[in-house]
Amino acid sequence: MFHKSSFLSFIRNAHSISVMAAVALIQGASRGIGLEFCKHILRNKSPVAVIAACRNPESAADLAGLADQHPGKVTVLKIDVNQEHDIKNAAEVVKKTFGKVDLVINSAAMLHPSGKGETSLRDVSGQGLVSTLTTNTVGPLLMAKYFSPLLLKGSGAFGQQPPEKSKQHSGIIVNMTAKVGSIGDNALGGWYSYRMSKAALNMATRNLSIELGRSRPKVVCVSLHPGTVNTDLSRPYHKNVPQDKLFSTEHSVQCLMNIINGLSVEKTGKAFAWDGSELPW
Amino acid sequence: MFHKSSFLSFIRNAHSISVMAAVALIQGASRGIGLEFCKHILRNKSPVAVIAACRNPESAADLAGLADQHPGKVTVLKIDVNQEHDIKNAAEVVKKTFGKVDLVINSAAMLHPSGKGETSLRDVSGQGLVSTLTTNTVGPLLMAKYFSPLLLKGSGAFGQQPPEKSKQHSGIIVNMTAKVGSIGDNALGGWYSYRMSKAALNMATRNLSIELGRSRPKVVCVSLHPGTVNTDLSRPYHKNVPQDKLFSTEHSVQCLMNIINGLSVEKTGKAFAWDGSELPW
Repeated sequence: MFHKSSFLSFIRNAHSISVMAAVALIQGASRGIGLEFCKHILRNKSPVAVIAACRNPESAADLAGLADQHPGKVTVLKIDVNQEHDIKNAAEVVKKTFGKVDLVINSAAMLHPSGKGETSLRDVSGQGLVSTLTTNTVGPLLMAKYFSPLLLKGSGAFGQQPPEKSKQHSGIIVNMTAKVGSIGDNALGGWYSYRMSKAALNMATRNLSIELGRSRPKVVCVSLHPGTVNTDLSRPYHKNVPQDKLFSTEHSVQCLMNIINGLSVEKTGKAFAWDGSELPW
Repeated sequence: MFHKSSFLSFIRNAHSISVMAAVALIQGASRGIGLEFCKHILRNKSPVAVIAACRNPESAADLAGLADQHPGKVTVLKIDVNQEHDIKNAAEVVKKTFGKVDLVINSAAMLHPSGKGETSLRDVSGQGLVSTLTTNTVGPLLMAKYFSPLLLKGSGAFGQQPPEKSKQHSGIIVNMTAKVGSIGDNALGGWYSYRMSKAALNMATRNLSIELGRSRPKVVCVSLHPGTVNTDLSRPYHKNVPQDKLFSTEHSVQCLMNIINGLSVEKTGKAFAWDGSELPW
């Protein structure tokens, strides 16, 4: 379950970290935006423990390198969000080791199993729809199910805490959405599986914000749109994107972390783009 | 595939019907709102052919009775929307027999495999989510995939046709949604699977309206909310619904058919409630 070397180095620091440090769990951390979130948080937050979850820790070379650069701060965990037991097991391990989580970012997503969004109904298949919905929608909600008890034990290390205790939050869930997941904004069509998965994910965010907004303390839940980012997911479409609209992962994550750092319960249950603007459902 | 007696009686009339009659396909027709749509259309539209699709034609006693009451007008077809090949085969049979469809109503849906919507994250499971999404969301989109070629050959027998030929439609797709599938309207939370499935279905409606709004002729696509209707789906919750808010299937379908009879391309891609009001996404 653990990337061994980083786990061992982490365990040596577990007690001190679990008492003091902010704990951030990034799911889909081996590449793209997820990997950049790990790097950004390690650079900018201290003391911090980053739990980097991905499907194949053994082959996650970038994460192994990050763990070496930041001794004792990175834990690489195996989570395939298509496997509910993976998520459940990971939550049990994190509970034992850290006792809490302050931030969960659900980053793993696919456009479609083929790597290309459907351009028309001709490309739609039941299998493609179910695969995309399972990874992009079901996975993030199951992450929330199993990690919300730990987020409720968080110390509110991310976001802004208002003075009133009743409005303070213990943790934050970020679901990575996409502007094309906005039904009201949809003028072009196509990309059936991806659009539908993100619309359903936005509903999950909204539902989570209600359930976890009733608790004391509260967990803030938002959907965030990273812009069009230079990653494997969007690679087939880069030639259609104007250069100034194709963001580096560094730029996108910097913008998104600015939003996350400003989150409070007043912003829960909403969808924001990288520039802070609210997206329509 | 066919309910035999109705199929045979139908076949005798196939030629005259395929030339003249309006053809309506109701999916999820064996009970509840779907069954009532069949009854309503048979009572109010003439000449008409109703294709009543359901999972188990053999045990659909109400449909068999309806076929006997309306000789030559009812075809009972087997479609389990969880089986893509069922949908594909049914479309091939309908193509051969009718050559067109004027109206497809996607009515089959479940709250959750357990029969009860999730009251909190505790009740959420991957299996429950995937089952609900498959029936409520993937099924209707696959219906649109396989039946849209036949809807494009429809004669526009339902809805309102504006005088301009370029704005006329050949067919209509109705996806039965629910107000609880509106993200913006969601103030109570819970019912994760059902809400998410209907939000994703609304995205499908929107996407379909764009793709099938570019074609000539066009196919009108809407989501409709029937109100809280006295059916098996909502039965566990009837005690919480004020009597005047719990609709009979007759009342709900009468309201929905009023909307369908007024549809044109100007209303495509939207979600309407039983009273004609537009629902937010």
